[in-house]
Amino acid sequence: MEENQNNMLPIGVFDSGIGGLSVLKQLVRFLPQENYIYLGDTARVPYGNKSSDIVKRYAAECTEFLVSKQVKLIIAACNTVSSVALEVVRHHAQGLPVISMIEPASSAALRETTNGRIGIIGTRATITSKAYEIEINNLSGKKNLKLFSKPCPLFVPIVEEGMMKHQSARLIAEEYLREMIEAKVDTLVLGCTHYPLLTNLFKEIMPDVTLIDSGEHASVTALRILAEARKLQEQRKEFIAKPNVKFYVTDLPNNFAEQANMFLGFESDSPELIKLGKS
Amino acid sequence: MEENQNNMLPIGVFDSGIGGLSVLKQLVRFLPQENYIYLGDTARVPYGNKSSDIVKRYAAECTEFLVSKQVKLIIAACNTVSSVALEVVRHHAQGLPVISMIEPASSAALRETTNGRIGIIGTRATITSKAYEIEINNLSGKKNLKLFSKPCPLFVPIVEEGMMKHQSARLIAEEYLREMIEAKVDTLVLGCTHYPLLTNLFKEIMPDVTLIDSGEHASVTALRILAEARKLQEQRKEFIAKPNVKFYVTDLPNNFAEQANMFLGFESDSPELIKLGKS
Repeated sequence: MEENQNNMLPIGVFDSGIGGLSVLKQLVRFLPQENYIYLGDTARVPYGNKSSDIVKRYAAECTEFLVSKQVKLIIAACNTVSSVALEVVRHHAQGLPVISMIEPASSAALRETTNGRIGIIGTRATITSKAYEIEINNLSGKKNLKLFSKPCPLFVPIVEEGMMKHQSARLIAEEYLREMIEAKVDTLVLGCTHYPLLTNLFKEIMPDVTLIDSGEHASVTALRILAEARKLQEQRKEFIAKPNVKFYVTDLPNNFAEQANMFLGFESDSPELIKLGKS
Repeated sequence: MEENQNNMLPIGVFDSGIGGLSVLKQLVRFLPQENYIYLGDTARVPYGNKSSDIVKRYAAECTEFLVSKQVKLIIAACNTVSSVALEVVRHHAQGLPVISMIEPASSAALRETTNGRIGIIGTRATITSKAYEIEINNLSGKKNLKLFSKPCPLFVPIVEEGMMKHQSARLIAEEYLREMIEAKVDTLVLGCTHYPLLTNLFKEIMPDVTLIDSGEHASVTALRILAEARKLQEQRKEFIAKPNVKFYVTDLPNNFAEQANMFLGFESDSPELIKLGKS
């Protein structure tokens, strides 16, 4: 009884804004019967151009909020937080399992590459942090790897404007990815949660390259951790029409709802406006 | 100790031929640290144009072979077997968990569709069996669905010839998929294990349609079943260069090895030639 009640607890997901919704989309794909809490810290977005001290404080506050909502697992669905503040999230998670964007995607990239040439694209902050390179090298042991990384700052605003199919998006993607093609990477880590929305474009430009969606691999990790701890909800036979997600934001709830549908592919409920720290 | 030894047992995968390798590819993506046995019944391929009595006998023999190899879980990585002989596989599996192609993909299609219009493509045998339609309707309860199914017999030989990027493949795909586009499906079930190799082509022709790869969803089901039973191998930190798969075929081992690489994306070991039944 006790155990079943714990299994009903939600999975907590947070990001500085809407990007983490691509991670939520993968979660509901693999774990449709779970309950979710999504927190977008839209009052302080983006985190990517802020100091690591500030990002750590924000990440701690997001984590504390999710803990206060009695989640059973926390996903830092934000590459910046995963890069610079993961230890802070772990520290504030009160012993709950914490999943970052970096480790699952790095491990997937290593499995997928056959020529050992891996590309990493992300925001300037993520690329500058070298978090993916460090993790990939750390996991790879002696494997002879060539890593190529490239900040692609225009991709986030293109996605947020919904211009993924615009001719300008293709021109920009061709420009950004040219050196990845020249470098003959066979695997490309999408090191930003906005980028999965550009998958079709990337596949057209680099049809033979394996794209690594960090949200997908984080979701598989969540599935494994919860299943092994026997903390998944029971699988029901009947079909669930709509994932059960409670959304919280720190600013502009109306804008959020509009963009959320683009990321999720389903009509989301309106988010609740909350206050975090001194935001 | 006992338990750890059981966790080392392989996962058994079988198909009439090479198509099931696209399922194996997904398995090693989600469960890279497991051991696998893959059986391709290449002496009796294809199953799709044979009577259900014959398919049942072949499926029973494949299952018995995997059971004799002490697998911990069996995946019927063949849509024909999944459509007409699943009960036989379960019966011969000696209580081991059995995963089919149909249920995980049907359930995924229901989750992904938003307009309730789902397409199903497969071999003539699979489409004629209506296995996906029955399963989708069975799972959906009262949901108002429109299902559209279409046999696409040319896709298997195109894949087996390695002609996925040939202009003829595009022309054929446009022809086969035209009625899916006209029917405004938002989700397309790839009801044949060869079809995931045509994903890039399908995405170009139907960029906004969600493609359901039955191997992917079967793999997630395997992950969940094994994790909940605590029968997964321990996750090691170090990187595994090459998945551990032992291949068996009933005919033409050299041809198999050549085509296996195309499906798997990694160099596979040579298969061992075995005899099943009176083949």
